[in-house]
Amino acid sequence: MSLRIIATGGTFDKHYNPLDGSLGFGDSVLPEALARARLAEPYAFQSLMAIDSLDMNDDHRQQILSACKSAPEGRLVIVHGTDTMRDTAAVIAAARLDKTIVLTGAMIPYLIDGSDAMFNLGSAITAARLSPPGVWIAMHAQVFAWNEVHKNRAAGIFERTD
Amino acid sequence: MSLRIIATGGTFDKHYNPLDGSLGFGDSVLPEALARARLAEPYAFQSLMAIDSLDMNDDHRQQILSACKSAPEGRLVIVHGTDTMRDTAAVIAAARLDKTIVLTGAMIPYLIDGSDAMFNLGSAITAARLSPPGVWIAMHAQVFAWNEVHKNRAAGIFERTD
Amino acid sequence: MSLRIIATGGTFDKHYNPLDGSLGFGDSVLPEALARARLAEPYAFQSLMAIDSLDMNDDHRQQILSACKSAPEGRLVIVHGTDTMRDTAAVIAAARLDKTIVLTGAMIPYLIDGSDAMFNLGSAITAARLSPPGVWIAMHAQVFAWNEVHKNRAAGIFERTD
Amino acid sequence: MSLRIIATGGTFDKHYNPLDGSLGFGDSVLPEALARARLAEPYAFQSLMAIDSLDMNDDHRQQILSACKSAPEGRLVIVHGTDTMRDTAAVIAAARLDKTIVLTGAMIPYLIDGSDAMFNLGSAITAARLSPPGVWIAMHAQVFAWNEVHKNRAAGIFERTD
Repeated sequence: MSLRIIATGGTFDKHYNPLDGSLGFGDSVLPEALARARLAEPYAFQSLMAIDSLDMNDDHRQQILSACKSAPEGRLVIVHGTDTMRDTAAVIAAARLDKTIVLTGAMIPYLIDGSDAMFNLGSAITAARLSPPGVWIAMHAQVFAWNEVHKNRAAGIFERTD
Repeated sequence: MSLRIIATGGTFDKHYNPLDGSLGFGDSVLPEALARARLAEPYAFQSLMAIDSLDMNDDHRQQILSACKSAPEGRLVIVHGTDTMRDTAAVIAAARLDKTIVLTGAMIPYLIDGSDAMFNLGSAITAARLSPPGVWIAMHAQVFAWNEVHKNRAAGIFERTD
Repeated sequence: MSLRIIATGGTFDKHYNPLDGSLGFGDSVLPEALARARLAEPYAFQSLMAIDSLDMNDDHRQQILSACKSAPEGRLVIVHGTDTMRDTAAVIAAARLDKTIVLTGAMIPYLIDGSDAMFNLGSAITAARLSPPGVWIAMHAQVFAWNEVHKNRAAGIFERTD
Repeated sequence: MSLRIIATGGTFDKHYNPLDGSLGFGDSVLPEALARARLAEPYAFQSLMAIDSLDMNDDHRQQILSACKSAPEGRLVIVHGTDTMRDTAAVIAAARLDKTIVLTGAMIPYLIDGSDAMFNLGSAITAARLSPPGVWIAMHAQVFAWNEVHKNRAAGIFERTD
């Protein structure tokens, strides 16, 4: 029943670089976010990579799959970029692990005003606790089977695929 | 399947009053919090009362129960003070409504640095979508049956009652 | 003695666009920032343009100079991008207006965690009230004559030019 | 010409206590606030006390005066509660030190949404750099001689005394 949270980067974890005005990566914000969440039960945290999901290739996805396989926990939350969240979910789903795996992310970085990051994190950990084994995507407090959702880029939301 | 969020006050919704240095209530922060959450499906929002849960009496709890009964939605999230969340849950549970009702709150107000409010809100709405009819308390990404949880005041967390 | 604040864009005023992940411009944050500042005396606010200072050309600088000339106030604060703040200051200084004109900006946008925007705004308005006529640059609570300062890009600070 | 910032508590530095819902004191927020400010020149920081200014007595004020006397710097910023800022200023002024001493504070704590703390801090450090020796109060980007200002409690601002 125990829980692991895996950081892979994505919008959720982007930092502003004051030297060049870009958004990039630094130390993951997740340890701070999880401390704020006051989780009462123990959990493991793993910072696996810190990249934009548009820059993820098959090697990165195999690394994420390996982390899912080798995790001793039965419930995993993967914080991931939104653009290719479904592609990573497909790779994990193909392995048919007997674990509840929930991918989540954010439309606005944790460190930027108006962020949805804490909301989605609360949703994803809850989904990981309540959902049966399988691969799920939790965004905007909805929990989708990984192959029944797509990102609507024009609206900036995840929607059920008809 | 549709969703209603009911604000009743509590720590989640406290505002700082610069004139006297106290924490009190003003317009609910929930419309802003819900807009940040980018909920993709329609929901109803109702600001029912704005009080500290230590100031709630039986009349207030009957008002909350009435709101639960008269809501056309089958899934309700009640944002409530943490100190008497369980007392209100008991009143609602006694009515045996055929609805999924989730109470949540925050240990640190939404408007104060380090708040758990957005996290708990994401957790509670997710719990309302995934849980069967009944009365639940969602705090720190855990979903407790209302009568199996208590607030540990010394630790500042909700724990399962043995 | 009265005061005008002029927004021109720059890092101070950048917004995150959740649809494409870029930082750009929207409604200026300055009305909100100035409300927070609780300024006790009246002031005028003018949103003149909203651009990155690297995209500013001579036309933009002439527009800013015109705004300085036509302002009825004797004390002006211009919120500007940091990269070409000195170039704009040079154009204004050449006009030898009998006004106190203070340029300021931010290394981290107002809307991003850890921003210096409010600090620099407080510094710049104070400098506009205390300094004699001339063109000044206020950053990091230092007030530089416009031609005695440069941005140290590697360090992310403004420094006195030797 | 060098600068010392002295923390004494006050609204600026209040923390929320999630265990009892009160606002009180912990480690000063000033080191973080000063890091955000990116001050380019060296400064000293001293956390002298952490109390509500309504709880300050003559002993506290003598301690603050001692700190002002013994500081090797010529420019001091004292972060102080707003309610008795003027009383402390009077004690310091009576000592006729040959230093520029600026008191500031906040109407909303640094850690609460909408705070004026960073703005006032930027204002006060700037005032300390630009003002002649004497005791000053910097609030809302105005710099008052200490004996020409009072707090308007109903409006939540500092105003010039007629």
